[in-house]
Amino acid sequence: MLKVALLGAGRIAKVHAKHIDDNPDSVLFSVSSHTTESAKKLAEKYRANVLSVEEAINHPEVDVVLIATPNDTHADFVEQAARTGKAIFCEKPIDLDIARVKACVKTINESGVPFMIGFNRRFDPDHSALQQALAAGEIGSLEHLQINSRDPSPPPKESFPGSGGIFRDMTIHDFDMARFLLQEEPVSVSTIGAALVNPEIAQGGDLDVIVVTLQTASGKIVVINNSRRSGYGFDQRIEAHGQRGSLQVDNLPATSLVKSSEECGTQAQKSPYATRDRYSEAFSAQWAAFIAAVKANKPVPITADDGLKALLLAEAAIESYKTKKVVSVSL
Amino acid sequence: MLKVALLGAGRIAKVHAKHIDDNPDSVLFSVSSHTTESAKKLAEKYRANVLSVEEAINHPEVDVVLIATPNDTHADFVEQAARTGKAIFCEKPIDLDIARVKACVKTINESGVPFMIGFNRRFDPDHSALQQALAAGEIGSLEHLQINSRDPSPPPKESFPGSGGIFRDMTIHDFDMARFLLQEEPVSVSTIGAALVNPEIAQGGDLDVIVVTLQTASGKIVVINNSRRSGYGFDQRIEAHGQRGSLQVDNLPATSLVKSSEECGTQAQKSPYATRDRYSEAFSAQWAAFIAAVKANKPVPITADDGLKALLLAEAAIESYKTKKVVSVSL
Amino acid sequence: MLKVALLGAGRIAKVHAKHIDDNPDSVLFSVSSHTTESAKKLAEKYRANVLSVEEAINHPEVDVVLIATPNDTHADFVEQAARTGKAIFCEKPIDLDIARVKACVKTINESGVPFMIGFNRRFDPDHSALQQALAAGEIGSLEHLQINSRDPSPPPKESFPGSGGIFRDMTIHDFDMARFLLQEEPVSVSTIGAALVNPEIAQGGDLDVIVVTLQTASGKIVVINNSRRSGYGFDQRIEAHGQRGSLQVDNLPATSLVKSSEECGTQAQKSPYATRDRYSEAFSAQWAAFIAAVKANKPVPITADDGLKALLLAEAAIESYKTKKVVSVSL
Amino acid sequence: MLKVALLGAGRIAKVHAKHIDDNPDSVLFSVSSHTTESAKKLAEKYRANVLSVEEAINHPEVDVVLIATPNDTHADFVEQAARTGKAIFCEKPIDLDIARVKACVKTINESGVPFMIGFNRRFDPDHSALQQALAAGEIGSLEHLQINSRDPSPPPKESFPGSGGIFRDMTIHDFDMARFLLQEEPVSVSTIGAALVNPEIAQGGDLDVIVVTLQTASGKIVVINNSRRSGYGFDQRIEAHGQRGSLQVDNLPATSLVKSSEECGTQAQKSPYATRDRYSEAFSAQWAAFIAAVKANKPVPITADDGLKALLLAEAAIESYKTKKVVSVSL
Repeated sequence: MLKVALLGAGRIAKVHAKHIDDNPDSVLFSVSSHTTESAKKLAEKYRANVLSVEEAINHPEVDVVLIATPNDTHADFVEQAARTGKAIFCEKPIDLDIARVKACVKTINESGVPFMIGFNRRFDPDHSALQQALAAGEIGSLEHLQINSRDPSPPPKESFPGSGGIFRDMTIHDFDMARFLLQEEPVSVSTIGAALVNPEIAQGGDLDVIVVTLQTASGKIVVINNSRRSGYGFDQRIEAHGQRGSLQVDNLPATSLVKSSEECGTQAQKSPYATRDRYSEAFSAQWAAFIAAVKANKPVPITADDGLKALLLAEAAIESYKTKKVVSVSL
Repeated sequence: MLKVALLGAGRIAKVHAKHIDDNPDSVLFSVSSHTTESAKKLAEKYRANVLSVEEAINHPEVDVVLIATPNDTHADFVEQAARTGKAIFCEKPIDLDIARVKACVKTINESGVPFMIGFNRRFDPDHSALQQALAAGEIGSLEHLQINSRDPSPPPKESFPGSGGIFRDMTIHDFDMARFLLQEEPVSVSTIGAALVNPEIAQGGDLDVIVVTLQTASGKIVVINNSRRSGYGFDQRIEAHGQRGSLQVDNLPATSLVKSSEECGTQAQKSPYATRDRYSEAFSAQWAAFIAAVKANKPVPITADDGLKALLLAEAAIESYKTKKVVSVSL
Repeated sequence: MLKVALLGAGRIAKVHAKHIDDNPDSVLFSVSSHTTESAKKLAEKYRANVLSVEEAINHPEVDVVLIATPNDTHADFVEQAARTGKAIFCEKPIDLDIARVKACVKTINESGVPFMIGFNRRFDPDHSALQQALAAGEIGSLEHLQINSRDPSPPPKESFPGSGGIFRDMTIHDFDMARFLLQEEPVSVSTIGAALVNPEIAQGGDLDVIVVTLQTASGKIVVINNSRRSGYGFDQRIEAHGQRGSLQVDNLPATSLVKSSEECGTQAQKSPYATRDRYSEAFSAQWAAFIAAVKANKPVPITADDGLKALLLAEAAIESYKTKKVVSVSL
Repeated sequence: MLKVALLGAGRIAKVHAKHIDDNPDSVLFSVSSHTTESAKKLAEKYRANVLSVEEAINHPEVDVVLIATPNDTHADFVEQAARTGKAIFCEKPIDLDIARVKACVKTINESGVPFMIGFNRRFDPDHSALQQALAAGEIGSLEHLQINSRDPSPPPKESFPGSGGIFRDMTIHDFDMARFLLQEEPVSVSTIGAALVNPEIAQGGDLDVIVVTLQTASGKIVVINNSRRSGYGFDQRIEAHGQRGSLQVDNLPATSLVKSSEECGTQAQKSPYATRDRYSEAFSAQWAAFIAAVKANKPVPITADDGLKALLLAEAAIESYKTKKVVSVSL
């Protein structure tokens, strides 16, 4: 039974706490948060301890440190935990600054600890089935990948300053998804974008509707379509076109109920709105994969390097947007 | 080029006129109707002659008589045309009275003329694909057939007296469809029903929501679900369950346009409302099959006997409704 | 925190154990089973005690008795638990014998204990959304309900003797669903059926493809379509037709992945095969509803009477099948 | 009744001949083709005359000239017909050379004859419903348009030399569709592409999988996804995302038949493969719109200018592909 020190007690930390508890091979040992009240509440629910981050990271009983604190603390906590030799699961991103990420990756690699970055969408049953079908060659060689990813509604104004902008905050999930499905690194990036959804986003210098295209050395093309607002739920669709056909994953409605009438035509329900509903199975499967790898002393499925590469694609996308040129990348 | 005398100039006659004209092997020779004005208009459109029914049936140039007049004239016109030796296409039913139908069938058989009764739904591309898949054994032996057939809205009050009631007027299409798909005759019939849609239907002694179950000698089960009103278009769905899976045909929407929004969920369009839209391809294919058979001197796909048997099932359904018992039939 | 004594340690008992543990207001206190090994294993997993049925039912710390033992033990255990004044959750059926059920219901009612029978399908998110839409009058007055319920594959031969036959074992879920959705009691029942799936079922005197129609006093019609084998997953669809349109719940595929190719057309995945996958959310929501009612001292959502009425409909269906007549019922 | 001189007797000319004949306000007067045999056959079918192009264009009875000859003859025939004052319907493109198109447009404008270029897809019921819904503001302001257009299979090698390449031959339809739906001109174009489908296409210097993004002055984004091969039918899907939701048009299957089984999951039919099947209604509606405009002496729905602008977008797309930069356009 692996004992887990959870750093953070916010929305995403609560999701992790549940999956730590549900997993037969992990147990929540402690919760640490600068909001002591939240830490207490969460610890109580799962009969865990409340510790300071320092205490948790250095506690001899702790096997795994799970970092779900604000983004700007990730790199520091990763380095501290790496030095104690504990296995680390870190919510994305390690940092928004490339140099800082590279330094952190160096520390991780030198320490030799198991380190996994949280790109939970790889573990969604739909996406996972798609990846397996592609890997099994069901449509032959992949030629064109289209990723549609639209948030239900824009993030609160308060979250802008620390988010790093749409490419580092939102598209980064799609960069990782593209790499997961392509099985070949992109070599060029081009971007167009606009601020159409929310004037405050435009004022903050960010974009909210963007299209990024990637291309690999062998010519494979990826199109990522992002918007900060769908108006009809969490839009998470992918389609892959290959030599022998296509594979698509679609949004599933909240329930299968369909109403048909004179007024409404044939009306299905919206898909879920919140990340935690859409990807609840993904979070659980991600944790299970991490714990299984740590327990078996095998490589974890997503590395620090994957986090770095997704960030490098985000940087290239920003450069392409600014220069109006196709930007080369070497991952 | 087969020359066709069209008897009738109403809604359904107009549909036939178009398909006679479109078919490369038939031409509209004449139109006959007691409403002379309608006959004239229709004849003019296709450069055909206006003739009396007598003249048309006996005209030496006429090869085919198409009967699309009011129901109570069908049997007489069939007999007259049969005696002249012309090929006959007759809209269902031959008559609503079983004895009259039997006499008429006898005349037809003695005359040896090609005679086809109009059960156009067999020629609908969806239903036809279903029949072929069943016949090809795609789901192994058929076990359970469900026919959903709902009119968009109740027929006008005026049509009640001559309609023969829901079983002879509406369910008769589904009895024929069941026989078409089963490839085995039903041996028993049971019925439940109610008048829920329109109080005037109840006052006229008719029903408007009914379920008829059929069973064949080998045990195959059919359920026919009828309503005089769907409230969302023309509901025409069939599902077949067999040893190795199921086959279903569904309602297609008017266009593929789908709208997704906060208010409407995911909203597809209604299916078409009118028979002539839903089954326009079926009418065309039916006529083509008839003309091809006549031209090649081969058996027509639907016989007078098929019309009789569907009517016998309607009679049994009525008896079952009245007696609250399963009724045996021998077709 | 309500302490639960779980009677049984088989497949369905394990499902309940998980939901007892997950629910924030209940805890698994003990497991009892004549298969001691299974009881031990299950108890260990949730840190619960292993007790005999007698000990469990009479234990002063136990608040709730959950009966998930073989069917023929239900009635006895219900009566024993009722006499101790404990809240009872009992898997369906109370018994397969009507007289025994009636006696048991009497004991329950006299004891005044909270008693709920497990018809988990009412709590499935799809079915629940359908019920709420109907209750909210979204399609006006209900006229025609169609329930499609097909098992993925026939039950093992060994389960026949104790099952009570298809109507008491399988259709009973659909009788309860019909009552749940109708909000009006059926007054008549008619049945047709056949043994087409498995010759061993026929030899055992049972049926495996059946259609039962129900009708209420106001004329509303229900059609239940059952088969012991679908060949494509667990078929659980319902459609409701009313004054102003229709509502349908459909089978959802295992994932949303769809493949399109020259060979396969457009191919979606099968729906789940097993009850525990299809209805896992239903089991959880059912338990939550029971615990919430017991805790709040409010009426439980499904009563012993509901269990009895579903069984009376099964009896009527059997009689109709034998007599080939519509059978009247008075619930 | 407008008398039509049809220039051409190939595949697309035959489609037009049928719609000329079906339309109540037009009649096929003559067919002209350098393949005299084809012209004769087609003329015979519709009881029309066989004339030389010269004779047809100058015939006093001819009201409309329909140009469906090989691409490199369009501009000459357009100019000849314009000078006779006849109404002209010309299959796209006027020419593949921008200068030639501009000269031709000048002649047309000076002549004042009704001139329509054939972009039939605007008249497809699905696309037309989408355009109307957008124009009616059903999703508020449009933000992001995605056009998926994939041919079932690559064109024959022989067609390469004269096609003008994928952008002028295939994407040009999507450029017109984008302009039709946007109601605002694009101001910039960027392109990525590859030759992945057919090595012969690569050897000919052409591409077969491409993505073009467009942006308007107000920031609206368009993504066009093209491939010369889908492997599952004619892929023609569009999705529009706006302020208040999304609108999508999808591929409809050949029939609604769906098969479910252990082996195949839930399998729908492929969509039609051929342009003439997918867009048969579009061709008919396009002709009706042209004839109605000519008859009523009103502006035709698609002008020579629309043809020119689509071609200018194709040129810009080619330039962007070559320079790896966003290219500005001024339409």
